[in-house]
Amino acid sequence: MSSLQQVNPRVRQDITPGALKPFKEVIDVSAGDPHRAGFKPVTFVRQVLAVCLLPRLLEEESLPLDVRRRAQRLLEACEGGSVGSYTASSGLPHVRRSVAQFVTRRDVGVPARAKDIFISAGLERALMVFVKLLAGGEEETRAGVLVPVPGPHTLPALLDQARVTLAPYRLAEARRWAVDLDELHRALRSARERCRPRAVYISNPGNPTGHVQDWESIEEVIRFAAAERLLLLVDEVHQDSVYGPGREFISYKRVLFEMGGEYSDTVELVSFHSLASAHMGEDGLRAGYIEQRNVDPEVMRFVDTMLCTDISTPVTGQLALDLMVDPPRPGELSFDTYRQEILLTRAVLSQNAQRAQEFLNDLPGMSCQPAMGGIYLYPRLHLPPEITEKAEMLKVQAEDLYCQMLLEETGVFLGAGCQYGETAANYHLRLCVLVLPDTLEEVLARLASFHRHGRASSP
Amino acid sequence: MSSLQQVNPRVRQDITPGALKPFKEVIDVSAGDPHRAGFKPVTFVRQVLAVCLLPRLLEEESLPLDVRRRAQRLLEACEGGSVGSYTASSGLPHVRRSVAQFVTRRDVGVPARAKDIFISAGLERALMVFVKLLAGGEEETRAGVLVPVPGPHTLPALLDQARVTLAPYRLAEARRWAVDLDELHRALRSARERCRPRAVYISNPGNPTGHVQDWESIEEVIRFAAAERLLLLVDEVHQDSVYGPGREFISYKRVLFEMGGEYSDTVELVSFHSLASAHMGEDGLRAGYIEQRNVDPEVMRFVDTMLCTDISTPVTGQLALDLMVDPPRPGELSFDTYRQEILLTRAVLSQNAQRAQEFLNDLPGMSCQPAMGGIYLYPRLHLPPEITEKAEMLKVQAEDLYCQMLLEETGVFLGAGCQYGETAANYHLRLCVLVLPDTLEEVLARLASFHRHGRASSP
Repeated sequence: MSSLQQVNPRVRQDITPGALKPFKEVIDVSAGDPHRAGFKPVTFVRQVLAVCLLPRLLEEESLPLDVRRRAQRLLEACEGGSVGSYTASSGLPHVRRSVAQFVTRRDVGVPARAKDIFISAGLERALMVFVKLLAGGEEETRAGVLVPVPGPHTLPALLDQARVTLAPYRLAEARRWAVDLDELHRALRSARERCRPRAVYISNPGNPTGHVQDWESIEEVIRFAAAERLLLLVDEVHQDSVYGPGREFISYKRVLFEMGGEYSDTVELVSFHSLASAHMGEDGLRAGYIEQRNVDPEVMRFVDTMLCTDISTPVTGQLALDLMVDPPRPGELSFDTYRQEILLTRAVLSQNAQRAQEFLNDLPGMSCQPAMGGIYLYPRLHLPPEITEKAEMLKVQAEDLYCQMLLEETGVFLGAGCQYGETAANYHLRLCVLVLPDTLEEVLARLASFHRHGRASSP
Repeated sequence: MSSLQQVNPRVRQDITPGALKPFKEVIDVSAGDPHRAGFKPVTFVRQVLAVCLLPRLLEEESLPLDVRRRAQRLLEACEGGSVGSYTASSGLPHVRRSVAQFVTRRDVGVPARAKDIFISAGLERALMVFVKLLAGGEEETRAGVLVPVPGPHTLPALLDQARVTLAPYRLAEARRWAVDLDELHRALRSARERCRPRAVYISNPGNPTGHVQDWESIEEVIRFAAAERLLLLVDEVHQDSVYGPGREFISYKRVLFEMGGEYSDTVELVSFHSLASAHMGEDGLRAGYIEQRNVDPEVMRFVDTMLCTDISTPVTGQLALDLMVDPPRPGELSFDTYRQEILLTRAVLSQNAQRAQEFLNDLPGMSCQPAMGGIYLYPRLHLPPEITEKAEMLKVQAEDLYCQMLLEETGVFLGAGCQYGETAANYHLRLCVLVLPDTLEEVLARLASFHRHGRASSP
């Protein structure tokens, strides 16, 4: 293993050409990538996929029988019994049915239909298709999307590329990054002066803020979307990572359904999930799904076509998705191992989040809201004038400068919070806590050392 | 296996709701999908991928040692040793190097550089990125691309979606679908009246025409592109499927290089290859590569970014690509099996093409140029007035009607040649010959029966 193993390949390019550094290895905690960070793949998932790729392993008795049975079923779902064949643009019907059954179980019986499920090559791909369909117009008539600030750091580039206007709504940091209804209304009014808002993007559990909406908060947002006729684009990729005491994941779909006819048959909802969840971490296999509700069938036909001409989802990813939504059940041979693996990841994530939050709050000039889910913490940073003045001189964002210095001096790569033109003196960092505990300790130690004694010391 | 196994899932949807049909199963020969058609995956490829997914198979002694060694090497090339991690947007550096070495060997020593190779999730994805970069302008200032007629049937939708104008150039059917220089000039002049032509798309070996360009023909096209300052977009996906006597595949890259400084350092060339080749048939794994030459580095940086924000290529596909371009070599344990598998596919393809061409030429009202490569035949069809008049009445294309009737009556699904507004009375069919020989016989028998005795009988 290279000493740079834990850093995103793009970051590594940026730093390797440099001079000798005072650290042994770079650790990238700016974004999540569980296997790169040292988490092990789910055994059941990999066993089944290996058999699907090499069907003679169906006879391999060292593999559990439930693994081989599942592989057999999945191969029967593939054209010509091979993962090498194309699939329908909306995905393998078998996988769409599995997803519908998963959603129904998850939502405590609220029904889901396979025909409302579309498989895509990950969240970004599916989101891009929807946003492109919304796009249109120029200047004040240009389509707009309300987006959370802070929100997923990959979102602005994606919306830009799709040529829609970003209309930011701020999450309430002091209330653990809650979605604030008044702020949604303010953001909408403001947006209407410069574009035509068509949708509101929600990240729940929140990326990178770690908030998890409760039933009431979700209902508020749905009423808002209904009253303002906005499409709800709901990123629920971290639904398996809710660890806040007493918190559980509640889907928008479930709340919408329970709100009854006036809402459940009219509000347009598209929710997203993917293999990039903490438990699976199979980001490299590239697959996810959307579930739609109340979206015009004509639009959905277009979605299907666009998903198709662009790229059909890799079949190995589709099968992994099936295994994610339909894992081993109690009593099955692979269940115990599966359960232990999932519980371990969950425990590490939860403990890391708590440990890091407490640690960061003990640092001078740092404050961090507790997270209840997701894979990030988003601490606030009070920067001394040395940094802010230097940033101004260099014409860079102060947080970017802080992160660059931290990287150069300690080898720790954090995400800079600056986005959507944040107001000055409102600085944040993005820290992915889905890492092994030892890695987290190393990150925190280096960060503390830099923060206390380096150029970023509190005045 | 379902009796509908050989039909594309999209087609199957179209016909299953119908009444009882006078045939046992539908056979879709409108497009290539080797595993759906019954070809077996390459053993070496699947063995290595299975080990990569389930690394404990590294110890599995029933797998050949070269398989396990290769898997070990590929896993070392993945972040965190897992196919579940993201890769750099341009692909795994290891795979890019393998591709560069393959291209160098293929082109008899003409050097290729890994930094000019970009991995993408299949040809369409990569092509879309380039075409989008060309796109711009409206009406007469809109970007245009010269496209072959006949050409790949998926091309028009893709270019439309990217908002560029199609500028068709006709291939010379009477000369075995040769690329005609005068026709290129005519097409360019004509295009300049309604758009700004920026690129010329080449399909070699030709999809769906089966022509294979010789050195001289390629040189002509390169001189044309150089003189007219057009970017060359060269689809060479079927480079492994050249079977015409005395023919070999020659890459544009190689010819361009050999033409020397004036050309080799200036003409912008982007060539495409993918896992959807006949020998691999791993369409479902979704990966391909492009090699660029002389494209502006600024543009390439943008390509890298667009490939990244949109989708990073599935890792299983990237690894399969590595195995495609660097297969077992003589003396290695897996070589004999690999060689036999490849030779079998090649023999079937070549024999099928010859058999079908002769058969079709024996049918009244049909004529078919011999193919020298690729996976299609593109026979010409003389339709009786019954069909053309009915089509006119129904306001559909006559070939579409013929294919629809053929499908309804015999269960054989051929591609209708009509595209880009072909002139009337110039009808063609697209027949994929990458099928098992028994399937081909069944297709030909049903087609002959329909053609001789059905509504399409020659007058």
